[in-house]
Amino acid sequence: MTERSAEWAEAAVREHAHLGAADREEQVLERIERARRSRPRLREDAITLAHGSGGKATHTLIEAVFLDAFRNPLLEPLDDGARFGVDGASLVFTTDSYVVSPLFFPGGDIGDLAVNGTVNDLAVSGAEPLHLSAGFILEEGFAVADLRRVVASMRAAAETAGVRIVTGDTKVVQRGKADGCYISTAGIGVVRRPLGGEVRPGDAVLVSGPIGEHGVTIMLARGELDIESDLASDTAPLNGLVTALLDACGDGVRRMRDATRGGVATVLNEVAGDAGVAVVVDEDAIPVRPDVRGACELLGIDPLYVACEGRMVAIVSGDSADDAVAALRSHPLGEGAAIVGRIKADPPGLVLLRTAFGGTRIVDLLVGDPLPRIC
Amino acid sequence: MTERSAEWAEAAVREHAHLGAADREEQVLERIERARRSRPRLREDAITLAHGSGGKATHTLIEAVFLDAFRNPLLEPLDDGARFGVDGASLVFTTDSYVVSPLFFPGGDIGDLAVNGTVNDLAVSGAEPLHLSAGFILEEGFAVADLRRVVASMRAAAETAGVRIVTGDTKVVQRGKADGCYISTAGIGVVRRPLGGEVRPGDAVLVSGPIGEHGVTIMLARGELDIESDLASDTAPLNGLVTALLDACGDGVRRMRDATRGGVATVLNEVAGDAGVAVVVDEDAIPVRPDVRGACELLGIDPLYVACEGRMVAIVSGDSADDAVAALRSHPLGEGAAIVGRIKADPPGLVLLRTAFGGTRIVDLLVGDPLPRIC
Repeated sequence: MTERSAEWAEAAVREHAHLGAADREEQVLERIERARRSRPRLREDAITLAHGSGGKATHTLIEAVFLDAFRNPLLEPLDDGARFGVDGASLVFTTDSYVVSPLFFPGGDIGDLAVNGTVNDLAVSGAEPLHLSAGFILEEGFAVADLRRVVASMRAAAETAGVRIVTGDTKVVQRGKADGCYISTAGIGVVRRPLGGEVRPGDAVLVSGPIGEHGVTIMLARGELDIESDLASDTAPLNGLVTALLDACGDGVRRMRDATRGGVATVLNEVAGDAGVAVVVDEDAIPVRPDVRGACELLGIDPLYVACEGRMVAIVSGDSADDAVAALRSHPLGEGAAIVGRIKADPPGLVLLRTAFGGTRIVDLLVGDPLPRIC
Repeated sequence: MTERSAEWAEAAVREHAHLGAADREEQVLERIERARRSRPRLREDAITLAHGSGGKATHTLIEAVFLDAFRNPLLEPLDDGARFGVDGASLVFTTDSYVVSPLFFPGGDIGDLAVNGTVNDLAVSGAEPLHLSAGFILEEGFAVADLRRVVASMRAAAETAGVRIVTGDTKVVQRGKADGCYISTAGIGVVRRPLGGEVRPGDAVLVSGPIGEHGVTIMLARGELDIESDLASDTAPLNGLVTALLDACGDGVRRMRDATRGGVATVLNEVAGDAGVAVVVDEDAIPVRPDVRGACELLGIDPLYVACEGRMVAIVSGDSADDAVAALRSHPLGEGAAIVGRIKADPPGLVLLRTAFGGTRIVDLLVGDPLPRIC
């Protein structure tokens, strides 16, 4: 992923508003290029919850600390998974750690989250998920009955997704040095069909269903809002849905991402930044359940930033858009799929939202972390 | 790994001491078989530090909870890594989580430990380590300077081992919900040469150098013993040493294991249990530095149970033993290599130690955890 340029570009657009369109574009591009060359700097001396949000602080941390140290061509794209070949096999390798609180919530628990999350990272990379590893960090005193529940739910999720947990590790830390149970999963997938080309102007932007259900469910499960709701997490393995989409549209599918931490807004920013295009979405077209919207209003957050754990964003060629929606809707996990926007050339690197009131605003990366430990 | 049968076999040996050798063996085998068929039961209601020790409680937890749920032919052997083929490539996949305390200690830190540990699991599985993932669980307030130190040391370790960190994840938890920094690494390696056959009577048991340095270093770094010492962790990547051994002995190498949590004693018990053989080691032949021995005496623990992070146990054919020792000693990490024992047929599943005083005692799996959070 390249340096997120939204901030710079926005300032540049303002600054050069008096110029003609062509001149302005040139200035904006120059700004973006400058931002891209400049090394992101981490200003904080200590880690904050925002560094785990998936938003701006996470990106800065990753680029300033991890990417800077580990720099290599496989890591550099900072995709959900690394792709490489081994003795003729084309593989994707990915990892995620899970620290969700509470461990059990309507619709799931840390166990199926840990399996589905890694399955989904593989699936949206265009790989067929094969094998998972699982590392447990357990707090002294954690109930064995709860561990059994978590493990049973991992097994069920693995069975549903058609993957196997083939290797693992268990560590125990003293009371007060963890929060019951943390899980890290890594996964290996195999790429057996070519992926579509670059994201380009004219492509359509799809989401596979209503957004924000996982994040809001977690907030409600914490009892931080006094709301009665039958919301449940959307946690689910996306590999079947991805297969349906690829079967229908082949290389019309340019890119897929599961919208986890940071939500759909973060995914769209990454698409815009990576491809150097604009993503223009219609607020009205984005499927959001009324109870999710209501909870988000009370929390003062935009559902676009709320994590899903069983929804993906897909960028498909304009020609494929209708077939893509039909394919997604034909799958139980994609019944609520919708075309929510288009890829444009300008302004590159930005996500623009056409609001329900007819205005347009820039959708930037999240600053801070309104929903810590969501996954 | 099969059900650890030492306890049963020991009792059986006692019980049938009045029988002739052949009868006794039959009885012992029957006992072992019965133990193997019986499902291990977890008696505790809550996780204890012993469940993270690598010893008896860890084995029971793994077999009663994880193996029972995830049961599949790749996980079943419970080796350091899972082996499988993908599109013609022969791969090994492994994971470990690291919760060592303190994070920084003489000779290393959690960063190089996390890289070397996973590299070593791949190497001793006979694979060439290729790519690693890294998942970080950071505590709010963790110093960015410390994170940079850890990450720099991961980079250095990866360079030394010739692997790349290609994918990662970062989570942040609130103050008091972790202990600075936990790291989970997973690794993929490729198997490009055949491994030797089964461990069998007549094989030699080697260790690649003095044992217990890592564990004792960690204990001293915690200030729990008032000892001045220049001991440092032995943390190191073993893939070069493994290559040297395989180059010298080819398929004379039956099995390799790095001796981490639970130490050499645990590895030898796993070898004995898996192959249904006896492992007989000479206490005098086991290389232990005097300061490690001294600290162990003060701590009241046997160096055989103390973790190493850069030492391995190798079982090689009797014919290859001398070549193997020479090959190990020719490598900087194997200068202190030694033949420490032999594989025998009887009593199957047991590790016997010939003590310096001429006696023989059974070396069982560790009960409890005298050294928590060693890695």
